[in-house]
Amino acid sequence: MLRAVYHVRCDASRVVDLARSIAVEQTVESPDALIGEETERRFVGRLVSIEPLPDGRFAVTLDYPPEAADAPLPQILNLVYGNVSLLRSVRLAELEPCDAVLRSFRGPRFGVEGLRDLLGVRGRPLLGAVIKPRGTSVETLARMAGDFALGGGDLVKDDHNFVSRDLAQFRRHVTLCQQAVSDANARTGGKCLYLCNLSVPAGEIARYVEAALGAHVRGVMVAPLALGLDTVRHVAESYPLVVLAHPSFSGALYQGGEHGIDPGILLGTLYRMAGIDITIVPAPGGRLASTREECARVVGLLRAPLGSLRRAWAAPAGGLRLDAIPDAIAEFGDDTVLLFGGALLTHGSSLERSTSDFMDVIRQHVRNRAAPGNAT
Amino acid sequence: MLRAVYHVRCDASRVVDLARSIAVEQTVESPDALIGEETERRFVGRLVSIEPLPDGRFAVTLDYPPEAADAPLPQILNLVYGNVSLLRSVRLAELEPCDAVLRSFRGPRFGVEGLRDLLGVRGRPLLGAVIKPRGTSVETLARMAGDFALGGGDLVKDDHNFVSRDLAQFRRHVTLCQQAVSDANARTGGKCLYLCNLSVPAGEIARYVEAALGAHVRGVMVAPLALGLDTVRHVAESYPLVVLAHPSFSGALYQGGEHGIDPGILLGTLYRMAGIDITIVPAPGGRLASTREECARVVGLLRAPLGSLRRAWAAPAGGLRLDAIPDAIAEFGDDTVLLFGGALLTHGSSLERSTSDFMDVIRQHVRNRAAPGNAT
Repeated sequence: MLRAVYHVRCDASRVVDLARSIAVEQTVESPDALIGEETERRFVGRLVSIEPLPDGRFAVTLDYPPEAADAPLPQILNLVYGNVSLLRSVRLAELEPCDAVLRSFRGPRFGVEGLRDLLGVRGRPLLGAVIKPRGTSVETLARMAGDFALGGGDLVKDDHNFVSRDLAQFRRHVTLCQQAVSDANARTGGKCLYLCNLSVPAGEIARYVEAALGAHVRGVMVAPLALGLDTVRHVAESYPLVVLAHPSFSGALYQGGEHGIDPGILLGTLYRMAGIDITIVPAPGGRLASTREECARVVGLLRAPLGSLRRAWAAPAGGLRLDAIPDAIAEFGDDTVLLFGGALLTHGSSLERSTSDFMDVIRQHVRNRAAPGNAT
Repeated sequence: MLRAVYHVRCDASRVVDLARSIAVEQTVESPDALIGEETERRFVGRLVSIEPLPDGRFAVTLDYPPEAADAPLPQILNLVYGNVSLLRSVRLAELEPCDAVLRSFRGPRFGVEGLRDLLGVRGRPLLGAVIKPRGTSVETLARMAGDFALGGGDLVKDDHNFVSRDLAQFRRHVTLCQQAVSDANARTGGKCLYLCNLSVPAGEIARYVEAALGAHVRGVMVAPLALGLDTVRHVAESYPLVVLAHPSFSGALYQGGEHGIDPGILLGTLYRMAGIDITIVPAPGGRLASTREECARVVGLLRAPLGSLRRAWAAPAGGLRLDAIPDAIAEFGDDTVLLFGGALLTHGSSLERSTSDFMDVIRQHVRNRAAPGNAT
C-alpha cells in the first residue's frame, strides 16, 4: 500500500469527482464502464479523505492498493504523479510507502552511520568542498582536492559541470584527484573522501563507474533528475559507493508553486528509496530560491523513519558562507554536510589554511555548545 | 553552440544581473573571481539579448559555447535547466541546439517517413488504440489487440500502467499480444504494429527489450520522465524498435506556469533528440489540462527542422472522442496518430467493428477533403 496526499485547487462542488478521477487516472485510466469489481479492488486508488486547506485548496488522500504500489521505481513515479502531472494545480504533497513497498528498496548503502564509520567522525557536522571551476587543469583541481584533505576537510567533490570527453580523460581526472586525496590522507592520517561527478550517457555508466572504482574512488556525485532516478538507484544498488545527489534540474519538479512535487518527497523520500546517502539541499539565504521551511522539510524526510531504510545526510549548499556555519548547525543539526564552493575557494590564498579555518569554526561551535551553560 | 531563451520575472533593474548569473550558474557556477579569461570564453554562456515580454517578464537569450553544449544528454539537461531550476519564475522557453551538437544524436530511427514505410500507409493519419484496463487477463488483452488489427487499425499499444511481475510474465504478455496482432495481419494482409509497455528497473531493460524482440515485437512505449530520458535515448539507439513516448510525469516539468520547461522543448525537441518516433500529446478538450496553443507548439517542434534528425509523430490523446476526428485532423494534419483508449473500447460490443467505424471516419474525412470544391 502507498498513501499519497494531493493538494488540489478546484471548486468545492468538483473535488469529490476530481479525487475519484485521480484514483482512476493513476491506476487503470479507463472509463468506469470498463472497470470491473476485481480491477477496482486490486488496482484503483481508495479515497481516504478530503480536507479543506487554509489557502482554499483541498488535501485529497488516496491509498493505492498493494498490487499497484509494489512496483519498480519508474512505475511508482508513474503511479503517484504520472497522469495527474498533466493536470494543473495538483501537487503531490505527502507520500507514505508502506513497509512492504519499501522492502524492494535497499536505500542508502552508507547513510548517516555508515558514512561516519567510513570517515571516523562523530559528534559534529562534516565539512565538504567542491573543486571548480570547469576549465581548470586537472593537475590544479587535484591539488585543490589534496589541499582540502590536508586542511582536515571530510569530503571533496567535483563540480557538477565537469564532463569528460571520453573514458580516458575521465580516468585521468579521477585518478589524479583520488591520488591527491589519498596522499594527503596518508600524511594527515585522515580519511577524506573524494567523490567524482558521474554525468555520462546511459549505456556508458558501468564502464565509467568501474574506471572510478579502479582508481580507488569511494563515492560519486549524480544529478538524479538529469541522469534518471532509477538509473541512480541501479548504480547505488550495484556498486559499493557513497552516492551524493546534486539537485540540478530537480527544481523543475518542485518550484512550480501549486503544481509539481513537494521537495521533501523528491529530495528526501524518493532519493532515499533510490539509495542516495547525501542530498544537496539548496540553502536558505543562498543564491538559490529556497525557504527555511522547504529546507527543513527535506532535511526532516531525509531522517524520518522510512521502513528499514537508512537515514541520509543533508548537505545545505548554494552560496553558503563561513559566517552561516553556526546558524546552519543550529538549524539542521550534526548529521549535515556543510558544503562550500566559492566561499571556501576565495577565502584565502591557501586552500589548506582556508579549510582549516572553516573546520575551526565548526569545531569551535560544537565545543561552545557543549560547554556548561551553553547547552541549548 | 546551443541557444536557450529563458522567460524570467524580476525587477527591470535586476534583469541584467540575473541574465549574467544564469550564464555563470549553468556552466561554471563560480564567483567571478575564479573565472579566468579562458574559462569565460570556453564555457560561460554569452548574453545575446534581453527583451521585455507583454506580460511584464523578460526574455533572456543566451548562447552556450560549443565546448559546454557538445555533451551527453544528461549534461545538456544540466546545462540548459540544471541550477536555474532551483530559482523561481525562470522558464526555459526556447532551445536551439546547433547542428554540431545535434550530430551526436541519432534522433528518431523511423520518424514520420520510416513509420509510414513500415505500415505501408500514405495520405492519412494513423489510427492507434490502447488495450486496457490493467487487471484484464492477458488472453483478453491479446484478443483486443488482434480485434483492433482485424478492424484495420494501424498501431495498438499497452496501457502505460501495465507492469509485469517478472520477465516470464512480461514475455508471456508480449508474446500473446504480438501473436494476436500477427495472426490478424496474416488474415487481413495488414501491417498493424503492437507496442509493449517498457516500465522496468534500470538494470533489467536489456533483458526485457530482448524478450520483446524475441517475440517479434516491433515497438515499445516508454515514459521518458519516469524511466529517465537518457535511458530512453540509449534504448532507442541500441534496438531496432519504434519508440512511442507517454507523457506520464512530464507535466511536473511544464505545468508549473512561469517556471519549468516549455512543453514543446520537452515533448518535441528533447524527445526527438532522445530518438522518440511518436509522442503522445495531451489533446485539448480531453481529460487533461492542455490548450490548443500548447498542443500546436509540441506538434510544431516534432516536425520543425532539427539538424538532420527525422521528424516525429504527434499522437493527440487523453479523452479523444470519435466526433473529434475531423477537427483533430484539420488541426494537426496527417502526420498524426489519433490514439483512442476508452472512447474506442466502449464504442460498441465488437472492437473489430468499432475500429472499422473509427477508420471509416478517418478515411471519409480524408476523401471529403480531397473532393473537388472541398480542398481547404
